Amino acid sequence: MPDLSKPAVTVLGLGDMGSALVRALLAAGYPTTVWNRTPAKAKPLVDEGATHATTVADAVTASRLLIVCLLDHNTVADVLDTVRDALSGRVVVNLTNSTQGQARELAGRYDVDYLDGGIMAVPPMIATPAAFVFYSGSRSAYDTNKAVLETFGESIYVGTDPGFAALHDIALLSGMYGMFAGGLHALALINSAGISTTEFAPLLKRYVTSMAGYVDGLAEQIDKQDYAINVTSNIAMQSAGYINLTLSAQEQAISAELLEPLGPLMARRVADGHGHEDIGGVIELLKKGNKK
Amino acid sequence: MPDLSKPAVTVLGLGDMGSALVRALLAAGYPTTVWNRTPAKAKPLVDEGATHATTVADAVTASRLLIVCLLDHNTVADVLDTVRDALSGRVVVNLTNSTQGQARELAGRYDVDYLDGGIMAVPPMIATPAAFVFYSGSRSAYDTNKAVLETFGESIYVGTDPGFAALHDIALLSGMYGMFAGGLHALALINSAGISTTEFAPLLKRYVTSMAGYVDGLAEQIDKQDYAINVTSNIAMQSAGYINLTLSAQEQAISAELLEPLGPLMARRVADGHGHEDIGGVIELLKKGNKK
Ligand SMILES: NC(=O)c1ccc[n+]([C@@H]2O[C@H](COP(=O)([O-])OP(=O)(O)OC[C@H]3O[C@@H](n4cnc5c(N)ncnc54)[C@H](OP(=O)(O)O)[C@@H]3O)[C@@H](O)[C@H]2O)c1
Ligand SMILES: NC(=O)c1ccc[n+]([C@@H]2O[C@H](COP(=O)([O-])OP(=O)(O)OC[C@H]3O[C@@H](n4cnc5c(N)ncnc54)[C@H](OP(=O)(O)O)[C@@H]3O)[C@@H](O)[C@H]2O)c1
Repeated sequence: MPDLSKPAVTVLGLGDMGSALVRALLAAGYPTTVWNRTPAKAKPLVDEGATHATTVADAVTASRLLIVCLLDHNTVADVLDTVRDALSGRVVVNLTNSTQGQARELAGRYDVDYLDGGIMAVPPMIATPAAFVFYSGSRSAYDTNKAVLETFGESIYVGTDPGFAALHDIALLSGMYGMFAGGLHALALINSAGISTTEFAPLLKRYVTSMAGYVDGLAEQIDKQDYAINVTSNIAMQSAGYINLTLSAQEQAISAELLEPLGPLMARRVADGHGHEDIGGVIELLKKGNKK
Repeated sequence: MPDLSKPAVTVLGLGDMGSALVRALLAAGYPTTVWNRTPAKAKPLVDEGATHATTVADAVTASRLLIVCLLDHNTVADVLDTVRDALSGRVVVNLTNSTQGQARELAGRYDVDYLDGGIMAVPPMIATPAAFVFYSGSRSAYDTNKAVLETFGESIYVGTDPGFAALHDIALLSGMYGMFAGGLHALALINSAGISTTEFAPLLKRYVTSMAGYVDGLAEQIDKQDYAINVTSNIAMQSAGYINLTLSAQEQAISAELLEPLGPLMARRVADGHGHEDIGGVIELLKKGNKK
């Protein structure tokens, strides 16, 4: 049952993630209006207590607080452009995955109090303690609506720059995809030898989780631009050993393409005289200004 | 003080790792003989109770159990070839990083009871609960010497194939380097925006650690060769979103090269009609026989 003492909320976009957000709002008692391009997706949510708006304009005028969770940046701009005037003076919280530049562009596009967000969870994690969401942009929009936003998971405000939530989001996704790329290579190797990957998986989780502890040391090297501190294993030794990863993949007839880019970067750091340092120095070679 | 009721052990190689192994043996009371190409590295260990052998032959004849921890496979073969006859009938535990093929080659090269090992730890972790070591090859060598081996950390025997310890070792290193590659990209992105990487690092550890939980689901997909089970986020959606990682890096003038290989592999799975499945299916494209 919606609690009419609570502020009304509108959600635009009822894909997997938008629907999960709506369910979290309904469970917390917020009067919730929903819109989706394909109206059929509203049906189960209406059964759970949501109000269905058949047009974007009706959805926008139903609440001061608008939460947007559509496919991508272009979809958001296309949908909101159709209701430009009706948006005026409202709060827009955009939880669509974007780049920092796209978020900044959207922040200046309409006459709204704009907050951008990056959801660090898959839909089943929404409203559980495992979920967290980065927010950046309007501080007042964040402070005023914090209770609503915290129905989705822990909220972390990372600054007034509307691009910073996206930057944090994409940085974590980059870290995650690196881990998955390495993990897929590892599983391919194990599988190619006829060993059970299901039995191997707990060892992979254990080792990756344990080695993730070294991220703190790398971060300090990068902040101080001093890659000779916190050196547990020097990059010369690591670079020499990296060749065995490729050799081992060749022996199993597995492509090493997922691991390929790091090898030459480590070798270049060694060739440039940084062999005694740690792998944190690789980031110097990622800075475009430093490219040869 | 060495405990003379305990079996004698010889360690060949006193680099960072070999020295850590010797210290673990001395702490546990094993009479330990050491040899190193550069003899000066034996000095601190002799002060702690080790016996220094100045030739490989003296080192080998001092103990029935030989532990080898040298730079790489070629170094091990070069050093052991000089004492081929003296090796006869002894137990060799080779803890040098090797590929599975190199380990198998070494197992057949001498008249010894051969056990291969892969150390999943950096030297300061040796003899702590965080360290574990894979062993494979001679089961009798493992069973007879388990107590000695467990002074280094938890021991995990993965089969009689002498290559399997190396395969497990390299698979975990592959997973680790993928995680570090993604992490370095993430830190480069954050650093490029003038944000503290030291403050960001705990979020990166938290997210990578939490997402590592999905490795179990991927492993089951791979074992069953069914990538439509355990689908949390379909690969079509992930592949479409992956483009934002590259765009975001471009906006920050950071090279996306560390993340590059995974994108085209995901896109190919989608193009091949697997868009509704999970990313586990990417491993089908790593199998060399499946290459176009
Ligand atoms: N799922 C996750 O694990 C996850 C995690 C974090 C962040 N996110 C982000 O959340 C956002 C939504 O993801 P999702 O999982 O909900 O995706 P989804 O299930 O594919 O839903 C996409 C939504 O966008 C709408 N849409 C697509 N093209 C449109 C167009 N041209 N005009 C109007 N509406 C359009 C769809 O409407 P129709 O129903 O009419 O197609 C649907 O509402 C994405 O930016 C995603 O990156 C997702
Ligand atoms: N350190 C780690 O984090 C770590 C972790 C897991 C596994 N490992 C593995 O453990 C092994 C040893 O690593 P480490 O860290 O001890 O390396 P290290 O400190 O560089 O030591 C290398 C050892 O190899 C010897 N050596 C090199 N070339 C030689 C040659 N031509 N002839 C004879 N001896 C030679 C060195 O002797 P000199 O003293 O005379 O140079 C030294 O004893 C490697 O296979 C490594 O991959 C290391």
